[in-house]
Amino acid sequence: MGEIVEQMQGITLTPLKIIEGDAGKVMHALKANEESFSEFGEAYFSTVEQGKIKGWKKHTKMISNLLVVQGEVQFVFYDDREGSATKGKYFSIKLSPSVNYQRLTAEPGLWMAFKGIGEGENMLLNVSSIVHDPEEAMSKPLGESEIKFPE
Amino acid sequence: MGEIVEQMQGITLTPLKIIEGDAGKVMHALKANEESFSEFGEAYFSTVEQGKIKGWKKHTKMISNLLVVQGEVQFVFYDDREGSATKGKYFSIKLSPSVNYQRLTAEPGLWMAFKGIGEGENMLLNVSSIVHDPEEAMSKPLGESEIKFPE
Repeated sequence: MGEIVEQMQGITLTPLKIIEGDAGKVMHALKANEESFSEFGEAYFSTVEQGKIKGWKKHTKMISNLLVVQGEVQFVFYDDREGSATKGKYFSIKLSPSVNYQRLTAEPGLWMAFKGIGEGENMLLNVSSIVHDPEEAMSKPLGESEIKFPE
Repeated sequence: MGEIVEQMQGITLTPLKIIEGDAGKVMHALKANEESFSEFGEAYFSTVEQGKIKGWKKHTKMISNLLVVQGEVQFVFYDDREGSATKGKYFSIKLSPSVNYQRLTAEPGLWMAFKGIGEGENMLLNVSSIVHDPEEAMSKPLGESEIKFPE
């Protein structure tokens, strides 16, 4: 498989605050006045069991704001964009509220898959720029694709 | 304490879908084209330990869209609005992804507190209509208030 790169154009990471209190925590997710916010289309959760992978999917319009709120999830992006400096390469990151609580903002145009890493429930929030529209997304089956999820 | 009523003006409940898949679930939260959506200001999570209560708080501007994504949370609202049909009364509901997965939309003007019911982590998402602003919210301490959290 292709090289895994440290940065990829179209992917932005924003560290988020967790504020501990007597009765529980407050965990920041996304504010409308932040630089990486574009537009609100939909908020939804996706869970992925340990060892299972959801993907590959490429959005052609949707900007995704991804946060892991429970467990740990590995996100992998593959770049097949013509003219991109990282064409044929991968970006991989593990996010979790306990170790690495960041928001990943992904522009459309990249292939994405994600894997459940934690033992219990692995849950992400996506705050996306458009309402879910199956017409704007492309899919490739995991096993039969030329894109490989890194071990 | 005052009567607990079944409905309160300013509180809307919207049942939400959970779609089961081979690798995990997709859980709906909020779409921009839904009737109960007003504006996107901020998304944040709040956790509350079992038996602990966060409150009382009254927002004067913020519309809240509340969802429980983990565990179970009891929400209690108290109405002290002049001229309201339910003045002096309470509204109480338990939300959870496993038993009662609904979005609670709350208009500003009501006192709110919430309690952790589940054994593990109890976590809610709020998609609010404005960015957090301490100036627009009022607080009352739990124990010293004339408002009582129902047992």
